[in-house]
Amino acid sequence: MKIDGTPYRTIWLDDDGWAVRVIDQTLLPHRFETIRLTSVEDAAGAIRDMVVRGAPLIGATAAYGVCLAARADPSDAALDRARELLLETRPTAVNLRWALAEMGTALRPLAPAARAAAAYVRAAEICDDDVATCAAIGDHGLALIDKAWRNAGSSRPVNILTHCNAGWLATVDWGTALAPIYKAHDRGIPVHVWVDETRPRNQGAALTAFELGSHGVPHTVIVDNAGGHLMQHGQVDLCITGTDRTTASGDVCNKIGTYLKALAAHDNGVPFYVALPYSTIDWQADDGVREIPIEQRDGTEVTWVGGRDGTGQLTQVAITPDGSAAANFAFDVTPARLVTGLITERGVCAASRSGLASLYPEQAA
Amino acid sequence: MKIDGTPYRTIWLDDDGWAVRVIDQTLLPHRFETIRLTSVEDAAGAIRDMVVRGAPLIGATAAYGVCLAARADPSDAALDRARELLLETRPTAVNLRWALAEMGTALRPLAPAARAAAAYVRAAEICDDDVATCAAIGDHGLALIDKAWRNAGSSRPVNILTHCNAGWLATVDWGTALAPIYKAHDRGIPVHVWVDETRPRNQGAALTAFELGSHGVPHTVIVDNAGGHLMQHGQVDLCITGTDRTTASGDVCNKIGTYLKALAAHDNGVPFYVALPYSTIDWQADDGVREIPIEQRDGTEVTWVGGRDGTGQLTQVAITPDGSAAANFAFDVTPARLVTGLITERGVCAASRSGLASLYPEQAA
Repeated sequence: MKIDGTPYRTIWLDDDGWAVRVIDQTLLPHRFETIRLTSVEDAAGAIRDMVVRGAPLIGATAAYGVCLAARADPSDAALDRARELLLETRPTAVNLRWALAEMGTALRPLAPAARAAAAYVRAAEICDDDVATCAAIGDHGLALIDKAWRNAGSSRPVNILTHCNAGWLATVDWGTALAPIYKAHDRGIPVHVWVDETRPRNQGAALTAFELGSHGVPHTVIVDNAGGHLMQHGQVDLCITGTDRTTASGDVCNKIGTYLKALAAHDNGVPFYVALPYSTIDWQADDGVREIPIEQRDGTEVTWVGGRDGTGQLTQVAITPDGSAAANFAFDVTPARLVTGLITERGVCAASRSGLASLYPEQAA
Repeated sequence: MKIDGTPYRTIWLDDDGWAVRVIDQTLLPHRFETIRLTSVEDAAGAIRDMVVRGAPLIGATAAYGVCLAARADPSDAALDRARELLLETRPTAVNLRWALAEMGTALRPLAPAARAAAAYVRAAEICDDDVATCAAIGDHGLALIDKAWRNAGSSRPVNILTHCNAGWLATVDWGTALAPIYKAHDRGIPVHVWVDETRPRNQGAALTAFELGSHGVPHTVIVDNAGGHLMQHGQVDLCITGTDRTTASGDVCNKIGTYLKALAAHDNGVPFYVALPYSTIDWQADDGVREIPIEQRDGTEVTWVGGRDGTGQLTQVAITPDGSAAANFAFDVTPARLVTGLITERGVCAASRSGLASLYPEQAA
């Protein structure tokens, strides 16, 4: 997607053709800076310190971390060390584990001298595959936005509410939930996005607002409390969110607060779609509320808020009294009954076992 | 209620018996300071600058503003000027208008020389009446908490979720939604309060957490996104919120986001109570979603967050990119169908026309 008119991916090779460049997402939306990664340690640090985040981008960064490791030392021992180093950065990220396994499969059979070149080829494929997957999600979701536009008589922008950041900054390009929005905008369908700020980490206010604004998509930031009111008053045509894990029955585990928006959408007859690549589907899980463990993070993410002060410095402020405890649940589960449909790279289906089976018959067998 | 063991009201006469003291709520929870008001201009400034806030406390402060005006100059002209000055501080606050009318009724028939003394008597009555009303709400709500405790086998604390600040800081003492919680805590019923931070102004994180902590009530601050997850997992026994306006049919207009919590409570079979004094009931209003206009406030309340930085200074930080618009709806409406009951100073009733009529037959006639 574009930043000030220039197309970007979230990860790319530097001009020298081997070092890796990423956007420092810890500084967004306040500063746009890129970081050059020249070693596997650099790549691991970028993942660990959340310079890069979002499951697909973490996987892509890990893949390029293996490239940097193989360039420095393509021995089995060195690649094992690289794998361990990368794996422990975000131990629960599914894509990280998957990307490292892919790289291992590609390199292990090769002679050490051939490994670095092969690693760059495979890492590029992983990135391109992610872009293709997200673009396909975008195309399928575009049809839903186009329909909403025609339902509104093509007379006003389509109002779409999203939660957290499931945009191109979380992937290599396009994003998941935001891919249909970019496709619609680029196609000339007028869209306006209600951006939930998404406490406690404010990924909506920081990242979604930044990437929509940078690409030129009209949007308005709202507090997480506001979506119900907007839906009661007909100001939301559809909701689209991402998901971190989707059960085989269509339950959706996504950023904390997604469930509340799905309830409001259901109460007001607003379609609630969830966009996802196949990799988030957990075919072993059925009842999301009962089966998916919810990560609890440090309470300081609730009690301290980061931003840019009046002098332009990035700083943190405490918003609670000393001595007040805070709890910080990272995700919640939206039951399938509240989800209008799942937007995948293979098409749109009902949020149900049969819906998913219709798109992924090889898994349902 | 208590602060570090010392009982406080939010407004009281200073040791000299005529000047007025209030807690500077703009500094909470970071600093506890009181301010001495010695003129009607001081009182008007305290209301305008939100040193005091909450409809009942605004009314009480306005009443004492009239006392200070009458002490300086008890003439009709001076009291008219005082009334105008106070009225324009928060033009939409119902209690402000009501308190000023009460003071006018009490003073106008009197000779100027008798007015100051009479003003202090009436202002004290207004405060005491508010305390009695809130205490009665507390007693009626206490029975609900006691029942929840017994339902849980008296074996663990009762978990209560609240939104925004409807505590003693918004009234003269006790509060509305928090009054039952203080009554239960003081009675020895173990309670634990989930405190919604309540973006964008963070009245939960700042004021509710402060007042519960100061009185010694166990509590945990959560982001507004978290309540649905807690209710899905049986971690909320009941919800209690306040209301800014209640329709004759039982719809409740309260701080933005209340509706989302009521939806989650309904979806999970968690009782959702709303506590209110009679003064918030709008007997002319029926359909809250259609009829109650929702105040839109400045978007900077969304895009800038205030708090205490690492050096202890109070500062503000921006959390959104330059150029991203923000919308700021202050309230939303929770339909009566989602409200388990209304807790008033006269008892608990169904959130319906007949429920309210059973408690307020003189209004329903």
